[in-house]
Amino acid sequence: MAELTATERLLRSCRGEPVDRPPVWLMRQAGRYLPEYRRVREGTSFLEMCSDVERAVEVSLQPIDLVGSEAVILFSDIFVPVPAMGVEVDFAPGPTLATPIRTRAQVEALQATDPRQSVPYVFEIIRRLRAALTEREIPLLGFAGAPFTLAAYMVEGGGSRLFPILKAMMYREPDVLRELLARLADLVVDYLNAQIEAGAQAVQLFDTWAGILGPEEYRDWIVPSHREIAERIDRSAAPLILYVNGGAHVLDDMLDAGSDVISLDWRVDMGEAARRAGSRLSVQGNLDPCALAAGPEQIRRSVEEIARAARPARGHILNLGHGCLPETPVEGVRAFTDAARSLAVA
Amino acid sequence: MAELTATERLLRSCRGEPVDRPPVWLMRQAGRYLPEYRRVREGTSFLEMCSDVERAVEVSLQPIDLVGSEAVILFSDIFVPVPAMGVEVDFAPGPTLATPIRTRAQVEALQATDPRQSVPYVFEIIRRLRAALTEREIPLLGFAGAPFTLAAYMVEGGGSRLFPILKAMMYREPDVLRELLARLADLVVDYLNAQIEAGAQAVQLFDTWAGILGPEEYRDWIVPSHREIAERIDRSAAPLILYVNGGAHVLDDMLDAGSDVISLDWRVDMGEAARRAGSRLSVQGNLDPCALAAGPEQIRRSVEEIARAARPARGHILNLGHGCLPETPVEGVRAFTDAARSLAVA
Repeated sequence: MAELTATERLLRSCRGEPVDRPPVWLMRQAGRYLPEYRRVREGTSFLEMCSDVERAVEVSLQPIDLVGSEAVILFSDIFVPVPAMGVEVDFAPGPTLATPIRTRAQVEALQATDPRQSVPYVFEIIRRLRAALTEREIPLLGFAGAPFTLAAYMVEGGGSRLFPILKAMMYREPDVLRELLARLADLVVDYLNAQIEAGAQAVQLFDTWAGILGPEEYRDWIVPSHREIAERIDRSAAPLILYVNGGAHVLDDMLDAGSDVISLDWRVDMGEAARRAGSRLSVQGNLDPCALAAGPEQIRRSVEEIARAARPARGHILNLGHGCLPETPVEGVRAFTDAARSLAVA
Repeated sequence: MAELTATERLLRSCRGEPVDRPPVWLMRQAGRYLPEYRRVREGTSFLEMCSDVERAVEVSLQPIDLVGSEAVILFSDIFVPVPAMGVEVDFAPGPTLATPIRTRAQVEALQATDPRQSVPYVFEIIRRLRAALTEREIPLLGFAGAPFTLAAYMVEGGGSRLFPILKAMMYREPDVLRELLARLADLVVDYLNAQIEAGAQAVQLFDTWAGILGPEEYRDWIVPSHREIAERIDRSAAPLILYVNGGAHVLDDMLDAGSDVISLDWRVDMGEAARRAGSRLSVQGNLDPCALAAGPEQIRRSVEEIARAARPARGHILNLGHGCLPETPVEGVRAFTDAARSLAVA
């Protein structure tokens, strides 16, 4: 097969069409591990960066030339569209809420919001990125946090290992949590559709905390929400990549959530996942970000193994199993994209 | 079958012999959720409590009468035997090391230590507990942290979500990490055998962090270490319960590690695990500790479901999938043990 453009390679992989080799990008590829990112970020809070169109565009584009990524993802945070609901969110550095959402009255007081009006800068960033990328034939991804993950922070008041307060709501007042999730689903659908209209060519839904649930609860609380989002966004214009962290125990349910691509963390056996995905959907992932601390030869072997294991799926996008960490060595990221680029044509 | 004593019920369940019903206890059942525990603990640091024989015995025994637990586990911490290796450990509240262990020289400087000499109070606590429990026919459990989990804190310097520094050592200097694990395995084996000699009737090995590894790494780094411990401790005197947190993706490897009982977290499908365990080993678990926030009827249904799902295994010990949390409602714990006690005779 003739060499494809990066845009063709990514979008065809998402849809399970033939490609020359798997495309490669990395979650949180524009991040603190890059000295050039830290330079742009200096003296600016994380939230300021997200609404500073110039700087957000600049750091979003950095990974193309600095580490050889083949896709750009909007620099932003999953909590950017949330404050317009009437919720105060800080970053320390994860999202924290001085006033967590724990009662029916608080949930009912949340305001419906059109992200096009409340966070117009997000779409301006997307339009500028798309303009910058079209000529280079590099694809642009948008993203959003999944309702459950947003709700987890909002109810708990911040990150947690076990989210006991969120789960107490789930067991004691399931209707309140369902109402919160429904409102967040509306927000997420509007937000992703607005990103697609503005120029995102694929979108990724991040469900970082869904994996804290047992198998039955996952089927009850998570799958219907993922399916609803998959149905309500314009997937004919932009395929949906679903990332679930810590979901190895609910692999079949992840595959069954209506997305075009399932993005797997490093604990999932890629071979097993790809066999089960088969012709139904594509897979993304799944190198442990910590494995980028290894030498280039070991990284190359890991990339080859993952690509081989992923072959039974209709398509494969090389990525990590979790975002780049502040500790991630830049040379490890380069070794990762180099290895991806030199994969033999399938 | 005639009603068994709590000791018979637990030990027979561990070994897969017939019992009247599953025994019940809870990980971290002597803990901050109990007002009576907080009263004894007042003004005392966690480490002081661990070496204060009177108070450690007192809080170890509390869950029998306060919440109806049918087994006692030594009140202590997995890091208690570690400082004698020459490592300074603080609690804040999880284990933290001002000087993490990251070089070959540091690993080689670790001192071999006989826990009988370095932490004699642990065995005094066990002897006193056993004396107090024998008449009541309630079994006594000892425990230790698994080498990988101890090493995780020691290398990282404290808890972490992804343990990037530990994993960097795994990828860059595997020999140094293997040496550290070998030394910790020696310590753990001596420590568990000394607990068994002092009167522990079963022992639980806690591998809280093994689940951060992918399937291949788990087989390479964790399984041989678990097997070695299972072989080197006196399992004819005290069966071995192995607890792995976050290990749903390596279920077969957990079952294959040579323990008598596998203790499962709430993300593992109990039915699936019990079928695979079959006549080979017993299962323990696995209610989500956060589910103790539910009402007593819901807790009863969950207990019945877990007990039913666990039947294909040769034995089942009712427990949580993780330790009790400070937020755990005492009445939820009572509802849990009540439900266990009223399970129909198998």
